[in-house]
Amino acid sequence: MVIVLQTGVTEEQIEQVSERLKQAGLGVHLSRGQYRTIIGAIGDEKKVREMGLEALSYVEKVLPITKPFKLVSREFQEEDSTFTVGDCTIGGRQLVVMAGPCAVESEEQLLEAAYGVKAAGAQILRGGAFKPRTSPYSFQGLEHEGLEILAEARELTGLPVVTEIMDPRLVDEVASYVDILQVGARNMQNFFLLRELGKAQRPVLLKRGPSATIEEWIMAAEYIISSGNDQVIMCERGIRSFENYTRNTLDLSAVPLIKQLTHLPIIVDPSHGTGKWKLVEPMALAAVGAGADGVMVEVHQNPSEALSDGPQSLTPENFARMVKRVRSMVMALLAAEEN
Amino acid sequence: MVIVLQTGVTEEQIEQVSERLKQAGLGVHLSRGQYRTIIGAIGDEKKVREMGLEALSYVEKVLPITKPFKLVSREFQEEDSTFTVGDCTIGGRQLVVMAGPCAVESEEQLLEAAYGVKAAGAQILRGGAFKPRTSPYSFQGLEHEGLEILAEARELTGLPVVTEIMDPRLVDEVASYVDILQVGARNMQNFFLLRELGKAQRPVLLKRGPSATIEEWIMAAEYIISSGNDQVIMCERGIRSFENYTRNTLDLSAVPLIKQLTHLPIIVDPSHGTGKWKLVEPMALAAVGAGADGVMVEVHQNPSEALSDGPQSLTPENFARMVKRVRSMVMALLAAEEN
Amino acid sequence: MVIVLQTGVTEEQIEQVSERLKQAGLGVHLSRGQYRTIIGAIGDEKKVREMGLEALSYVEKVLPITKPFKLVSREFQEEDSTFTVGDCTIGGRQLVVMAGPCAVESEEQLLEAAYGVKAAGAQILRGGAFKPRTSPYSFQGLEHEGLEILAEARELTGLPVVTEIMDPRLVDEVASYVDILQVGARNMQNFFLLRELGKAQRPVLLKRGPSATIEEWIMAAEYIISSGNDQVIMCERGIRSFENYTRNTLDLSAVPLIKQLTHLPIIVDPSHGTGKWKLVEPMALAAVGAGADGVMVEVHQNPSEALSDGPQSLTPENFARMVKRVRSMVMALLAAEEN
Amino acid sequence: MVIVLQTGVTEEQIEQVSERLKQAGLGVHLSRGQYRTIIGAIGDEKKVREMGLEALSYVEKVLPITKPFKLVSREFQEEDSTFTVGDCTIGGRQLVVMAGPCAVESEEQLLEAAYGVKAAGAQILRGGAFKPRTSPYSFQGLEHEGLEILAEARELTGLPVVTEIMDPRLVDEVASYVDILQVGARNMQNFFLLRELGKAQRPVLLKRGPSATIEEWIMAAEYIISSGNDQVIMCERGIRSFENYTRNTLDLSAVPLIKQLTHLPIIVDPSHGTGKWKLVEPMALAAVGAGADGVMVEVHQNPSEALSDGPQSLTPENFARMVKRVRSMVMALLAAEEN
Repeated sequence: MVIVLQTGVTEEQIEQVSERLKQAGLGVHLSRGQYRTIIGAIGDEKKVREMGLEALSYVEKVLPITKPFKLVSREFQEEDSTFTVGDCTIGGRQLVVMAGPCAVESEEQLLEAAYGVKAAGAQILRGGAFKPRTSPYSFQGLEHEGLEILAEARELTGLPVVTEIMDPRLVDEVASYVDILQVGARNMQNFFLLRELGKAQRPVLLKRGPSATIEEWIMAAEYIISSGNDQVIMCERGIRSFENYTRNTLDLSAVPLIKQLTHLPIIVDPSHGTGKWKLVEPMALAAVGAGADGVMVEVHQNPSEALSDGPQSLTPENFARMVKRVRSMVMALLAAEEN
Repeated sequence: MVIVLQTGVTEEQIEQVSERLKQAGLGVHLSRGQYRTIIGAIGDEKKVREMGLEALSYVEKVLPITKPFKLVSREFQEEDSTFTVGDCTIGGRQLVVMAGPCAVESEEQLLEAAYGVKAAGAQILRGGAFKPRTSPYSFQGLEHEGLEILAEARELTGLPVVTEIMDPRLVDEVASYVDILQVGARNMQNFFLLRELGKAQRPVLLKRGPSATIEEWIMAAEYIISSGNDQVIMCERGIRSFENYTRNTLDLSAVPLIKQLTHLPIIVDPSHGTGKWKLVEPMALAAVGAGADGVMVEVHQNPSEALSDGPQSLTPENFARMVKRVRSMVMALLAAEEN
Repeated sequence: MVIVLQTGVTEEQIEQVSERLKQAGLGVHLSRGQYRTIIGAIGDEKKVREMGLEALSYVEKVLPITKPFKLVSREFQEEDSTFTVGDCTIGGRQLVVMAGPCAVESEEQLLEAAYGVKAAGAQILRGGAFKPRTSPYSFQGLEHEGLEILAEARELTGLPVVTEIMDPRLVDEVASYVDILQVGARNMQNFFLLRELGKAQRPVLLKRGPSATIEEWIMAAEYIISSGNDQVIMCERGIRSFENYTRNTLDLSAVPLIKQLTHLPIIVDPSHGTGKWKLVEPMALAAVGAGADGVMVEVHQNPSEALSDGPQSLTPENFARMVKRVRSMVMALLAAEEN
Repeated sequence: MVIVLQTGVTEEQIEQVSERLKQAGLGVHLSRGQYRTIIGAIGDEKKVREMGLEALSYVEKVLPITKPFKLVSREFQEEDSTFTVGDCTIGGRQLVVMAGPCAVESEEQLLEAAYGVKAAGAQILRGGAFKPRTSPYSFQGLEHEGLEILAEARELTGLPVVTEIMDPRLVDEVASYVDILQVGARNMQNFFLLRELGKAQRPVLLKRGPSATIEEWIMAAEYIISSGNDQVIMCERGIRSFENYTRNTLDLSAVPLIKQLTHLPIIVDPSHGTGKWKLVEPMALAAVGAGADGVMVEVHQNPSEALSDGPQSLTPENFARMVKRVRSMVMALLAAEEN
């Protein structure tokens, strides 16, 4: 940490800060500039952070030098993390395609969708049994029944299943039905839920919160990993900006950033990221260009009759076309890399 | 709802949409403009919302006409809601001052703070037993022990207590210790928690999420009320914008907006709203000008030694000065209104 | 500046950076922490800024210690700047009220408005002769004719006039007609215009850009002052956030911040800041609470027939009520300060 | 337009609005819903927009049905616009690569850069003679001398040149030296400049403002085209969001959106869009995936000695690598399309 002192700070005040740092076991490095005196605190930054030195009237600001995350960082583990789910490796050189309807609506609907997306090339089935909805009057998901239907679809198609979990009380139950547990954007900082997921034996797909900085998102992954579960997949799904032509602003620079800062795989959800089905294919291709390990898209047999998120769902035909184009782009990138 | 159709829409397509609306029991009102044909759907907007008509390629957009909230709206209840907590009425003509440290750190610290803020004019004591922290390595609160200390402070000082609740499993326990249950900004859309709070017999202080629109925030209140608890206090605590000189951007226009759109009381938290103790007093005064029913501020005996949020905490002296100025401003506004 | 080096940096690389700093006449202060080596550059930060050291692969980040502005800063001038316009002092203990229609539409309209706002207590008349409009097909102002009408209103009512200037070629002309030259939000970083205004002999009212940070806004003021004109009045008029219930998000924390960081006066425009006339009075009162030196509001005889910004304009009656309440609040604050 | 009236609106008030619409030559279509009465105004929306009906207390909101832009829209011109600059077609099936240093610093620097980027595959040379800088104390460009150097580089290498223009007084001069006139992000709504550019005989590269919505950006293009110059190239360069790990948030969904809404070509600037050279290649590849017609990147022989924007500049080696990968991706996409 670098502690920047106000102009006019007295020797006593400098002494006072230095003393507190030393008492906490930190090294102190004083530097008197032309305009400002600054103190470098050498050692564990967390200790300095907790001191709240900005509250002192003669401290102008406290600047962090190191990053606050550890277990997820590239410095902690240099090679990429990869996880295997069914036949599928997430984080390797192959792109993983996850697809399915936003919500499980009925057995018939989900099975039809599952067979459809499998035929078109999806490797993992998505579908919500619990739906977080802005309005208490909207369809909230089939809940337990939805889990049963997802398990059936998995049995019949062989596709692993990912579904959202919102309540820390339900982690064991949901984990007994599905392969990947998804943390939705609204729950990215639901720390009690994150800690429960740290005890689960399933990979966790961690969506970025709509107003979460890259650092806060990484820290949410750190919660899960430091609680015991190191299988975390990051998922960029758009942040909230002033632009409202799209439902969210898909921040694809998060893809190379997560790859540079952490060893975790990252996938992209262009369906929620844009809210408009016409933008899903171009943004899926863009995600591949940015280096994503996978894409997750919403597909519905009949988007205009979906109980949730119809406007952003692809028809099976459009999805099949997208998969084809996405895969040819991945091959071109791999070929270019080898040359 | 108004459904705007693409240019070039065919008669059959118009018929198709109309038919679906009618089948759902809605009235249909067709209007052919110079550039666009639009369909007015008469009846329950929720039904149209659920149809996902935007997914049809010939539908350009679907515009809501009515607001999605009901029980909280001014149209549902014209007069202001007021709640009594201890001797204190929230939502009436008196300004309510809530104050205390960010986190309960020890019995001694909290009792000293409680007596201090009471002497300076606070009517409700705040203090966190469970602390949502970005880092898993930061102090997470004294948890159960913190609740015990809060109950003791309440017993000794007579001040009602407000504290944050993060886990739906703990609603009953926390409610047995404190007077007001606070939903933190990160949990504003933790719908399982909101529904549990709908069953509690305590007022709920609902903080606005950092990226929540006014409408989403109101809908979160609607979740609590529609689950059975109509004692909801809104709390503006700043939204996330590009500006990072302040910790958040305090959106004071939310105060008159909430008053116009709903019948609920609204208070303002200038401590989290700015993150800088030097801005707390001016923003508390601004909140009063905007018409807030109360302010909630962080006060710490020794801000630079607080385990959490020291930089935004007032000293007891500064707090006493703020209360004095805030109260004289309230009186001036009441006097001006009477003339 | 503090230069934070990557882990694994070599002695040679450290030497290389140090050498470049020394060659630029800067002092070098090396500090080897447990996790990072950092270099403190002592002397003129501008020189370090221009070096672009972040481009070196072994430099992690470069942290500024001092602020980039000088002439506008409290450190440069401790006492408040005040400017006199007509009978009116801006930046003193009295609140200045500026009011008038968004656009000058006709002689009759403006004169009626000018007499009206004067009667209700306005001290400065506002009105646009040149209107920046999102659409090329919207009314763009009466231009030269509008200036003539403003000068006439000033002559007849004795009110000084403020109007927007958008084109650097017109500074002399506009300055010959009006008392205060306004830089609109969209032109806050139109540096050629700012430099021309630095040569004008008129106070400049500098609106904050919709996406300008506090620091960028202050730097825009620094452009004007460093070009020779030290009469700059800051004007907060709302920033762009994700919230679109209001036209902009009025960032009132800018008021105490500008007062703490600079010696310039600051006023608030709650009309553009909210876009809704029902929010203008509460936000004007809030601005006063935050410590603003003045407010600027849009008033129109017949808002629903205004050629521009009708929805945010007050009627003369509502304006008169607002002035009365605002003034009584100022008196209460001054009285509280004296006790 | 659809005019939504407040509940409780009287027949007289409905009549009043209808009358005003009719007087303006608009058709009136009344629809009485269960909760709200709405009026459809049939005819030119611009007329309704100018009426400011939201200012009436009994009008809740006014909803636009049609888009405010015309000449740039797909509805006005179905086929893509393409422009030829030198040997290069912008907006066709080939990707255009524009590259060069942020600022022209000297003849030697620019010529070296020009030959370098040409060798690596750039088709258009970029370089700033006038630099918009946040600080008045930063390097502002070589101005006239910079234009001379750019013209020399163009002569020697045969590369067409693009440079930024900030001052409406300089349009003719700058146009006499270069091939494409660039409007910087800060000037996107400098309407006097846009109108001057409407009279120029050169293509205009219009950067998106950091807080400009898609619609405002398109309207800025409409300003240029409606002033007489239909050669406009859109350039996405990142918007301002709360995330500050990157300099801006590159909004790649703007690429397919601009393609769907308008007939104009669009390129992407991943250098300003991210501010970090390590993100430039992945985001250039992402831009190609999204369907961009070109990319514009900053290349500097020695980024850590650049007078401007070094941290986001590629070295010539990294640039060459990027061009190779970008081109192979374009070929893969074209091949996939043909199948």
